[in-house]
Amino acid sequence: MDLLAKRTQRLLGSVIDSSTSLVQRQRHDVIRFAVGSPAAEAIPTAIFDELAPKAFTADAFDYAATDGDRQLRAALLELLSRTSEATTGERLTITTGGMQGLDLFGKLFIEHGDLVVIESPTYTNCTATALSYGAELLEVSTDGDGMIIDELEAAVERAGRAPKAIYVIPTFQNPAGTTMSLERRLRLIGLARRWNSMIIDDDPYGMLRFQGQEIPNIRALADADPLVYAVRTFSKIIAPGLRVGWVDTDPEIHQWLINARQSMDTCTNLPNQRLVAAFLSAGYLDDHLQLQRERYRERKIAMQSALAEHFGSRASWTDPDGGFYLWVTLPGVDTQALFPVALTEGVAYIPGPAFSPSGRFPDALRLCFASMPPDRIREGIARLRRAVDQLP
Amino acid sequence: MDLLAKRTQRLLGSVIDSSTSLVQRQRHDVIRFAVGSPAAEAIPTAIFDELAPKAFTADAFDYAATDGDRQLRAALLELLSRTSEATTGERLTITTGGMQGLDLFGKLFIEHGDLVVIESPTYTNCTATALSYGAELLEVSTDGDGMIIDELEAAVERAGRAPKAIYVIPTFQNPAGTTMSLERRLRLIGLARRWNSMIIDDDPYGMLRFQGQEIPNIRALADADPLVYAVRTFSKIIAPGLRVGWVDTDPEIHQWLINARQSMDTCTNLPNQRLVAAFLSAGYLDDHLQLQRERYRERKIAMQSALAEHFGSRASWTDPDGGFYLWVTLPGVDTQALFPVALTEGVAYIPGPAFSPSGRFPDALRLCFASMPPDRIREGIARLRRAVDQLP
Repeated sequence: MDLLAKRTQRLLGSVIDSSTSLVQRQRHDVIRFAVGSPAAEAIPTAIFDELAPKAFTADAFDYAATDGDRQLRAALLELLSRTSEATTGERLTITTGGMQGLDLFGKLFIEHGDLVVIESPTYTNCTATALSYGAELLEVSTDGDGMIIDELEAAVERAGRAPKAIYVIPTFQNPAGTTMSLERRLRLIGLARRWNSMIIDDDPYGMLRFQGQEIPNIRALADADPLVYAVRTFSKIIAPGLRVGWVDTDPEIHQWLINARQSMDTCTNLPNQRLVAAFLSAGYLDDHLQLQRERYRERKIAMQSALAEHFGSRASWTDPDGGFYLWVTLPGVDTQALFPVALTEGVAYIPGPAFSPSGRFPDALRLCFASMPPDRIREGIARLRRAVDQLP
Repeated sequence: MDLLAKRTQRLLGSVIDSSTSLVQRQRHDVIRFAVGSPAAEAIPTAIFDELAPKAFTADAFDYAATDGDRQLRAALLELLSRTSEATTGERLTITTGGMQGLDLFGKLFIEHGDLVVIESPTYTNCTATALSYGAELLEVSTDGDGMIIDELEAAVERAGRAPKAIYVIPTFQNPAGTTMSLERRLRLIGLARRWNSMIIDDDPYGMLRFQGQEIPNIRALADADPLVYAVRTFSKIIAPGLRVGWVDTDPEIHQWLINARQSMDTCTNLPNQRLVAAFLSAGYLDDHLQLQRERYRERKIAMQSALAEHFGSRASWTDPDGGFYLWVTLPGVDTQALFPVALTEGVAYIPGPAFSPSGRFPDALRLCFASMPPDRIREGIARLRRAVDQLP
């Protein structure tokens, strides 16, 4: 179709996570380590059923205010006031999931040819968003302490121009599971200020810490610097299907976000905003999170134990203090070639190259330990080993 | 903030409907003719309460398939099969309201500097979307039969280049309430084919016809030509807060839409998709629409009668066969200057210039007759007259 312009080619040529859709079409008994969904048993449907009649009044089905429903905004501000994320209404925009927070950043800030720094590996769909706005991506390696700041400095020097933005998932990173150290967070803020670069501080998992000491977030460390654009979501801590997240930004940017939203999806769906507001106001979140943390810690250990049992020294994996993911390296194994074999064995994951626009990490893969109970995790890792053994 | 790039300036400088947000912040007893919302009493909350426990299973809170939940897709295909909108699954994408269907068009097709033809007046937020992707807009006047095709031909000839897209709301147009004649629809399709231009066929109100004969839609008349991109929504026929709509396109474009969505908001919220699916599958829509049509016809007549009573020959207004809006012209009255006075009197509307990027229609305004019961409509028009009388 000759109408198809460069913009579309960028989208089609980008690092879209097609393996996810492929898995969605597989037979029912595939053990799904691919999609980053909370456990089905972690969805508080009984509480939702209890809250729904009160939450779903007729006015809950009208258009919502563009920056978010007043009830949800109030409940969220109260929740955050008890954390290091404390903020104010003039900085808060409710979004259609965290993903829209990332898309909005691109819409407001990324011009064709702008340099955007990303962690390598990183979250596929943010890369795709940046590319769809014409960004040129600069991959910077990570280690157990997050993005390697020395490499960042060197890479930007080589590029010969300042990045428009630096995209990081500082805590329980997706896909690596690692957490950026305090020292690196501070250095990152310093560099962003020197370069006048925005920091996209994406933190979907921060409330799901099950071990270790909390590290102050970049938003707080930067003292509400307008350069920090913080993206948050209820997708991992309550439920992704709600499509409710938020962005915490400088008040001036907040106003631009409102304008931009009106020509994107008008507003975030209101019934789910009311449901989340009721959930928070009734005080359910603390207990809910405590349960999830215990659940995910147990599952992470089950997955690590199963990996040790079935792979021993043939593989290595990360040890996150929270979140959803293990990043597994299988030296000598092509995880893209492994993928269809694994599906046939009945286990799904995302191959490493999906997390790098230049296709790094051919021998790595991401496993989500959150969605499956321990016995399924053990069975899934056994299947993964059987798949590896079938490779030539 | 010096980070702010051209893109943002375009957004800020665009024709954002700020009057809507202003009204949202007014005191409770303002009679709201501004926002295009269904009547509160038209929201089937009792049915939703009945359906919710069955619809809201744990899996209803997970990520949805990017092109839409299977249950909703099946129910919608069945619904459409009984109408002139009959289509197939490979053409159908569930979107986050109709607005996202328009935004997706921009993301896929509009390059900086592309010419996009719009009706004058037209729906503000589509204009804003097109501008946010860098479109140059070409306004073509409308009359009682919709866009004036002779003027379209002349305008494109003057522009010296073919438009990338022609945006029309052919049925019960927003804001004018008029319906494009069959002859003009056919001529429009012919021109689009000659120019190789896309037609954005936006039809949120088509199922809300309360009088007159149905006119075949452009999608059907063009025989599924890939040039026609059809945007639809449940916002006006069920409830806008759900944020559930759909796009009907060529199957190849459908695939691009799936890719684009993954880096915008991932998917449409699933609980509301399941709620709509249950609503359709249980067969509630037909009776629901019949009730709404009767309700809106009665309200339109009430508004027209009140206008005749309070304004007589000092105003003129349209006579739509369906939908939500009257387009009122008050010769000699500056409706933007009138707006704050009207708010003080306790009535809200949208001034005419909000519907034209070049600020046409200074003496016109849009009234939504759908949201308020007849007695409030009569009171609102009386207040409007009192506001007009206060102008110098």
